[in-house]
Amino acid sequence: MTKKIITMGEIMLRLSTPGYKRFLQADSFDVVYGGGEANVAVSLANFGLDAYFVTKLPNNPIGQAAVNYLRKFGVNTDFIARGGERIGIYFLETGASMRSSKVVYDRAHSSIAEADIKDFDFDEIFMGADWFHFSGITPALSDKSAELTEEALKVAKKHGVIVSVDLNYRKKLWTPEKAKKVMTRLMQYVDICIGNEEDAEKTLGFKPGKTDVTKGKLELSGYKDIFKQMKDKFGFKYIVTTLRESYSASDNGWSALIYDGNEFYRSRKYDIRIVDRVGGGDSFAGGLIYSLVTGKNFKEALEFAVAASALKHTIPGDFNLVSVDEVMTLVNGDSSGRVQR
Amino acid sequence: MTKKIITMGEIMLRLSTPGYKRFLQADSFDVVYGGGEANVAVSLANFGLDAYFVTKLPNNPIGQAAVNYLRKFGVNTDFIARGGERIGIYFLETGASMRSSKVVYDRAHSSIAEADIKDFDFDEIFMGADWFHFSGITPALSDKSAELTEEALKVAKKHGVIVSVDLNYRKKLWTPEKAKKVMTRLMQYVDICIGNEEDAEKTLGFKPGKTDVTKGKLELSGYKDIFKQMKDKFGFKYIVTTLRESYSASDNGWSALIYDGNEFYRSRKYDIRIVDRVGGGDSFAGGLIYSLVTGKNFKEALEFAVAASALKHTIPGDFNLVSVDEVMTLVNGDSSGRVQR
Amino acid sequence: MTKKIITMGEIMLRLSTPGYKRFLQADSFDVVYGGGEANVAVSLANFGLDAYFVTKLPNNPIGQAAVNYLRKFGVNTDFIARGGERIGIYFLETGASMRSSKVVYDRAHSSIAEADIKDFDFDEIFMGADWFHFSGITPALSDKSAELTEEALKVAKKHGVIVSVDLNYRKKLWTPEKAKKVMTRLMQYVDICIGNEEDAEKTLGFKPGKTDVTKGKLELSGYKDIFKQMKDKFGFKYIVTTLRESYSASDNGWSALIYDGNEFYRSRKYDIRIVDRVGGGDSFAGGLIYSLVTGKNFKEALEFAVAASALKHTIPGDFNLVSVDEVMTLVNGDSSGRVQR
Amino acid sequence: MTKKIITMGEIMLRLSTPGYKRFLQADSFDVVYGGGEANVAVSLANFGLDAYFVTKLPNNPIGQAAVNYLRKFGVNTDFIARGGERIGIYFLETGASMRSSKVVYDRAHSSIAEADIKDFDFDEIFMGADWFHFSGITPALSDKSAELTEEALKVAKKHGVIVSVDLNYRKKLWTPEKAKKVMTRLMQYVDICIGNEEDAEKTLGFKPGKTDVTKGKLELSGYKDIFKQMKDKFGFKYIVTTLRESYSASDNGWSALIYDGNEFYRSRKYDIRIVDRVGGGDSFAGGLIYSLVTGKNFKEALEFAVAASALKHTIPGDFNLVSVDEVMTLVNGDSSGRVQR
Amino acid sequence: MTKKIITMGEIMLRLSTPGYKRFLQADSFDVVYGGGEANVAVSLANFGLDAYFVTKLPNNPIGQAAVNYLRKFGVNTDFIARGGERIGIYFLETGASMRSSKVVYDRAHSSIAEADIKDFDFDEIFMGADWFHFSGITPALSDKSAELTEEALKVAKKHGVIVSVDLNYRKKLWTPEKAKKVMTRLMQYVDICIGNEEDAEKTLGFKPGKTDVTKGKLELSGYKDIFKQMKDKFGFKYIVTTLRESYSASDNGWSALIYDGNEFYRSRKYDIRIVDRVGGGDSFAGGLIYSLVTGKNFKEALEFAVAASALKHTIPGDFNLVSVDEVMTLVNGDSSGRVQR
Amino acid sequence: MTKKIITMGEIMLRLSTPGYKRFLQADSFDVVYGGGEANVAVSLANFGLDAYFVTKLPNNPIGQAAVNYLRKFGVNTDFIARGGERIGIYFLETGASMRSSKVVYDRAHSSIAEADIKDFDFDEIFMGADWFHFSGITPALSDKSAELTEEALKVAKKHGVIVSVDLNYRKKLWTPEKAKKVMTRLMQYVDICIGNEEDAEKTLGFKPGKTDVTKGKLELSGYKDIFKQMKDKFGFKYIVTTLRESYSASDNGWSALIYDGNEFYRSRKYDIRIVDRVGGGDSFAGGLIYSLVTGKNFKEALEFAVAASALKHTIPGDFNLVSVDEVMTLVNGDSSGRVQR
Repeated sequence: MTKKIITMGEIMLRLSTPGYKRFLQADSFDVVYGGGEANVAVSLANFGLDAYFVTKLPNNPIGQAAVNYLRKFGVNTDFIARGGERIGIYFLETGASMRSSKVVYDRAHSSIAEADIKDFDFDEIFMGADWFHFSGITPALSDKSAELTEEALKVAKKHGVIVSVDLNYRKKLWTPEKAKKVMTRLMQYVDICIGNEEDAEKTLGFKPGKTDVTKGKLELSGYKDIFKQMKDKFGFKYIVTTLRESYSASDNGWSALIYDGNEFYRSRKYDIRIVDRVGGGDSFAGGLIYSLVTGKNFKEALEFAVAASALKHTIPGDFNLVSVDEVMTLVNGDSSGRVQR
Repeated sequence: MTKKIITMGEIMLRLSTPGYKRFLQADSFDVVYGGGEANVAVSLANFGLDAYFVTKLPNNPIGQAAVNYLRKFGVNTDFIARGGERIGIYFLETGASMRSSKVVYDRAHSSIAEADIKDFDFDEIFMGADWFHFSGITPALSDKSAELTEEALKVAKKHGVIVSVDLNYRKKLWTPEKAKKVMTRLMQYVDICIGNEEDAEKTLGFKPGKTDVTKGKLELSGYKDIFKQMKDKFGFKYIVTTLRESYSASDNGWSALIYDGNEFYRSRKYDIRIVDRVGGGDSFAGGLIYSLVTGKNFKEALEFAVAASALKHTIPGDFNLVSVDEVMTLVNGDSSGRVQR
Repeated sequence: MTKKIITMGEIMLRLSTPGYKRFLQADSFDVVYGGGEANVAVSLANFGLDAYFVTKLPNNPIGQAAVNYLRKFGVNTDFIARGGERIGIYFLETGASMRSSKVVYDRAHSSIAEADIKDFDFDEIFMGADWFHFSGITPALSDKSAELTEEALKVAKKHGVIVSVDLNYRKKLWTPEKAKKVMTRLMQYVDICIGNEEDAEKTLGFKPGKTDVTKGKLELSGYKDIFKQMKDKFGFKYIVTTLRESYSASDNGWSALIYDGNEFYRSRKYDIRIVDRVGGGDSFAGGLIYSLVTGKNFKEALEFAVAASALKHTIPGDFNLVSVDEVMTLVNGDSSGRVQR
Repeated sequence: MTKKIITMGEIMLRLSTPGYKRFLQADSFDVVYGGGEANVAVSLANFGLDAYFVTKLPNNPIGQAAVNYLRKFGVNTDFIARGGERIGIYFLETGASMRSSKVVYDRAHSSIAEADIKDFDFDEIFMGADWFHFSGITPALSDKSAELTEEALKVAKKHGVIVSVDLNYRKKLWTPEKAKKVMTRLMQYVDICIGNEEDAEKTLGFKPGKTDVTKGKLELSGYKDIFKQMKDKFGFKYIVTTLRESYSASDNGWSALIYDGNEFYRSRKYDIRIVDRVGGGDSFAGGLIYSLVTGKNFKEALEFAVAASALKHTIPGDFNLVSVDEVMTLVNGDSSGRVQR
Repeated sequence: MTKKIITMGEIMLRLSTPGYKRFLQADSFDVVYGGGEANVAVSLANFGLDAYFVTKLPNNPIGQAAVNYLRKFGVNTDFIARGGERIGIYFLETGASMRSSKVVYDRAHSSIAEADIKDFDFDEIFMGADWFHFSGITPALSDKSAELTEEALKVAKKHGVIVSVDLNYRKKLWTPEKAKKVMTRLMQYVDICIGNEEDAEKTLGFKPGKTDVTKGKLELSGYKDIFKQMKDKFGFKYIVTTLRESYSASDNGWSALIYDGNEFYRSRKYDIRIVDRVGGGDSFAGGLIYSLVTGKNFKEALEFAVAASALKHTIPGDFNLVSVDEVMTLVNGDSSGRVQR
Repeated sequence: MTKKIITMGEIMLRLSTPGYKRFLQADSFDVVYGGGEANVAVSLANFGLDAYFVTKLPNNPIGQAAVNYLRKFGVNTDFIARGGERIGIYFLETGASMRSSKVVYDRAHSSIAEADIKDFDFDEIFMGADWFHFSGITPALSDKSAELTEEALKVAKKHGVIVSVDLNYRKKLWTPEKAKKVMTRLMQYVDICIGNEEDAEKTLGFKPGKTDVTKGKLELSGYKDIFKQMKDKFGFKYIVTTLRESYSASDNGWSALIYDGNEFYRSRKYDIRIVDRVGGGDSFAGGLIYSLVTGKNFKEALEFAVAASALKHTIPGDFNLVSVDEVMTLVNGDSSGRVQR
């Protein structure tokens, strides 16, 4: 029987400039819809699971377009509430070489940021569910969102659902102080925790090692130290992080690290020519959840998640549109990119 | 010496679907920037006047793109304040035949709606100015905007500047009650008033005649009655309205009526194949202001304004990009559309 | 409770030249998916019904894209079989003025044309269904398709489902002789029959009146005569036809005629500026089915269907993406096309 | 055996703004190649004749692109000389409704304008040819072009080739005085003369009647008077003109008049929704030449030419890409524009 | 005197997603036409030879578009038969980094696959020809195609034409067993044989060495062994293979190996950033044929062919649009890619 | 107080093929405007200086579009003369990997090439100016342009303006002999000289070292030798060159060398994935001028200029649209290209 996975969060209208244009140059924007947890849901739907995305969207044609967009890629939208003021928007300018991609957020006052607990029937939502995933973005949207997230977590736990979080600190949404206060409380419901050093420090207060993300170099010892602290404090089953080595906006190294409280396992590393790196982390979470919920062991799960998310970097838009077969081809060692006829 | 004209209001990011697509079908949006008073400013700049647009825009690349867009078309942007939360957005789906064009607004919380009087140095702005134009949209944005508008009007009058208003009632922004309260107070500063029957009723409380705009028929007697009441109450120098006969989203009749307190004059009527009717009214105001400030009599001014705005309907985007020569060719009777080689 | 409607037939990949280009000029094709019964299903989904489309599509990414496309617009794709050789394709060149639109079909050997009865579980499909719609295209695809259609009709009738047909004669698919043989047999299952004079003659052998469709003139007496014959022979509950007056590829008159065995009723006529007329007839069937299944009387149903399909002509692609509200605005007399803000 | 037709003149790079954009708005140009005589050659190639286009193009990739473009549409390019400075360019902004289309020429110093007689082997070119067509544009390009044209005419006549001219006065290229001097001399070689009143006056000095082309009205008596004068002076076999009624840039009436020295015959008139009217006159010449060279009588030829060129107005670009069958369908009365499946 | 080269095979409509989009994301397809032997013909035409492409295409506008497309790029289309059911189609999704490009074929029932020997007058076709090239794709299309190919080979040989083959095994078209049966028989007519290890094994039964193409590593000893076997069995004058090192879908190493029965020569290797690798092998064959037919020695020929085909990888579409000069610049060592002003 | 910088030269219409298409493949061109000194002006405007561009443009809509384009990006266009024959054009085909980008110029007879000294009021232009920049392209356009340049230089010097030149030899515009004669005379007015070895040899006659630019290798000793000679002969304050290592059309190394008569300083080197390298040198000049005029020392200035111009290579079009902050981020060592949220 297929697994029922619930994700909850914000889906935004993404407006991106075509062909490496800067914002000042664009006279059209490419339109997709995306957002952390929605991206995870799409990954899972592509892998064949029964993926639900829970959010609130305005009752206008742009809100409907977001619903249709999710539906197109196989996500179940039955639990999406409608109403509120607006859909959040983000503008994206795709960088190249040493020019960074740039994101301008216009997400305040969105329907989901102002949604009430009573917009959702969480008992119905989590009935028979196997997994619930959220990110640190959702509780950061507003105080109401933080309450909404906690309510969802409580009901999820009541239904015996496994919970994963992607810490995903967003400095435009809240301060580290606020983040720590809220996120620390939410961690009690979490089984699997995904987050890099910066996330761990900003949202949970764990002191990072000396990794300097702008240098593109990695120091694993810092991670290991933090992961042990996290395990001690919150008792997570798995703690996981992706390891991005940003050589430039065009080329990245990509791998991941998992800790099961006992053993650290680092995945194979991929060197990627980037087409679109937005949603890379979300596709990793999607790959990890798929693997664990379908019974892979934690090392296999990590390799699947890294390969899946490496492929995401080659696909335009927020969504990772790859099949299990395509991921497994890469996991099994064929990264030659030869034409499939 | 060229005339200095001040317009003040909101400029929005306009996102429109290409090629008659519905919102649900679009995977790109065409990008322009526009808004009532900005559109007037562009018209005037095209006609060779020294046109300033006063607004507040966020200090991010999208705000900068709006500034650059105005600059490109010759508008002076020196008095644009920078800061605040966001640029207003409107989504546009272009209709055809019996399918209406559809506008979805996402303009709340914009920088200009939340701007303070102290963001602007109105004495500097109106120093040496000849004309100030605003529309009923600006005071409708927020209470602060209404105060800002009144302050601008006071300083304009102090500097002996002629003032025109386009009543432009927007039901999504305020109620008729609120509109009447604010707009009635502002009318004391106004010399030239532009507005159709619906505007006159909703923003000033004048009872309209029996014109049913959805039928595409016109009844001028209602207008004449209202114009006389308006003249009596506010003492406007000229009262003007465009007369749109909506045969369909593709074809409109277009003419105008002016009243100088003495005589009613109706312009020539144009039957238009519409390319883009957004900004049609603004281009009319632009044509009227240009004509009056450069000394045409009120009948000539009306004919110029109607011809200019008829041409606007054939140009994509909010802005009317025609020259005085092009308008005069049409005023002088050549509507044959023959190729100009 | 929402109605469950089943449609069955072929959905094709549609490749159309952009911007009135001829085939020889195109270096890109616009991509949508569409086909008679699928188009009806989308109409019904837009109107809020539970619309299922039954077909067979190849197990490759293009087949999947067709599934996703239907899903995006709200059609339930659970009963779509996967396998077979290929998806049917049609190429479309959009005409203008006196230049006709041109369709090149490449639909032979499609998965649905070669589908077996055992690809579908018709008992499950028609369980609890309210309506079944098919067109004369489906049985024309192949002998197997004709058998498949008859099997579906039998099971539908067993479940007490109302059946409608759109006769839709396609001369590239079969001869009038073949059509008559097959279609006459299938008519025993049909309650509501839609078809114009040419369809009635070519697929059922009824002799048309003197309507010359290339002249753009209509003669209703011929229709009335044929409708009576059809009623006598097959006992349909309603016989319906659209009445297209082709002034040119850009402008058509559009109305319809219905006969309930007792009374002839002709709808209001719309003069349409055409954006895309493909799928016009299908959107009419969709409007009619929606109206009848939700309890409108036959005159109201006809007016709804004509207004809905008039709007379709203004929307690019095969699908009619309008809401019940939008149709009712037009039914209620507002065809002014004024901007909806 | 298929007929060999020679045309000679300039082919230019045409850069047009997409979607009714004004020049100031365009950030891309659509690219085609076209020019009076080249357009005629393409018409003839489409009709199945052996059409040669003679010109000179620069020896760079843009010149090669023009050659390939002609080749694509079936024109024989064997007699195109290569060399010289540049290809002529024209910029096109497509008008709508009362806004005229606008052409900006940048054609000075083109390879063909500076070509020498010795760039071409006219004896080889006209060997076995049936027809030679040129327009008043070619000799207007430069003095060298006028000489080149006369040389071509002499050799054509030596080979017994029928000669047609389209007078096509271009005020940006020469004065009426210069035109009259050159064109009057060239008329001795001409058998069939195409030109409207303005052309007849500006290039040959015949006084026009009272037709005011900007009014969209026609007065045939003026034409008849001029045609008789032309017959008397130059002894043309046929004198022909198209009759364009410019209701607007979007809608034109289109017919033609022919005089065989004995009888005036006016064609059927078409009312056209215009997609692209550039090349309309050239496609008329193409239709006329095809008809006459393949043996139609002068009335049939006129009807064919008018129908062919009416269809051209619905096709983007300079070229008329219609087949003989498509033209004959329209000649035979089907202008309904119904979908051809 | 220029050389006359005949190529024969299938040209398909190629529909590719723009900008690295996956099939599910595309709402337009880029349109080109291409196919193994047609691609070779275009290469040769670009190099200045008299290149003929022999195929059969349906008598509809899409078939005509393919003809025009070839004509545009200078290929002689006089020997293309018209008729049959359809043009073959292939869908292409361009990969990046570790995501492979994906090809979906829809080529069954094409006009050429069902063509008869009597559709072609091979005596006329090969009269005066210097070279005939075909690939293993053509006989794989159908049994009739295999017969057609053999007939062409017989007549070619009768006319003393040099014959080259590109083995090009396509697993979707036939089994190795079938391929071996057909291809082994055809080899008797072949002078120059191009093919990699996989081709040699699947179509001719030669056992490959240990090269694992998915690893991007090369082992030349295997090739040398096979080439000697091939020489022994079929007596080819030259045996040639390209050596592709697939580092990823974005980056490949590219070189080639030739054997004249005496000496093995390996070319310079190019590291390529790929724009479009489809047609890479065909452009190699084109470069090789050009070089050999114009008298280069086998080493020069190999270097020319490798450089030409390296350049192909940087050009969108199937066709290699480079000149002899451009290839020679690269052969002579300038791969700096500096701007040519 | 912001600095006033004058640049003078030609701005051209740039027509480039989209997406790596070759000229033969393009059916649209992307449109921007650019040219050496205009590109410098835009850089400076982006950095916040008061940048004026002096040129002459035709009095037509294409000329106006160039003016508006400059205005959009903040350049002051008050000193642009209008009139003359045409705007210069250049066609650009963007290369990839070992395929070079290709530029086809069509710039003869441009308005600026034929401009008179009396088209400009240089005293007004240089009043209060801080810097004047020109390139070797401007005097190369024509003899009149050389005179115009010298006149500008004289007046600039009269007003005490600092002068920089970018030698920029263009072999299509003049011979080395002509260049040396003109440029040597102009050097007396120059304070800062930018140019690579080829420029130094062709325009000033200094013998280059052994650097072979097609090999992508650098030899600094040659530069040092030449720089000393240049210092000796002309007494420049700074002599500067960029050092481009062309690995391929897709990847370049990029650094620079400066000499202050005392010390040689070589900048950090960047390895760049190229999006658009046209205007790279101009953006370097812009960065250098900005740095020097705002008081950076020569080493800081060089680093700023190199970083600024490295970023240019990642932006489509001729213009460098980066801010001082963005450049400083790179100068300060963050080339990781991480997403800026």
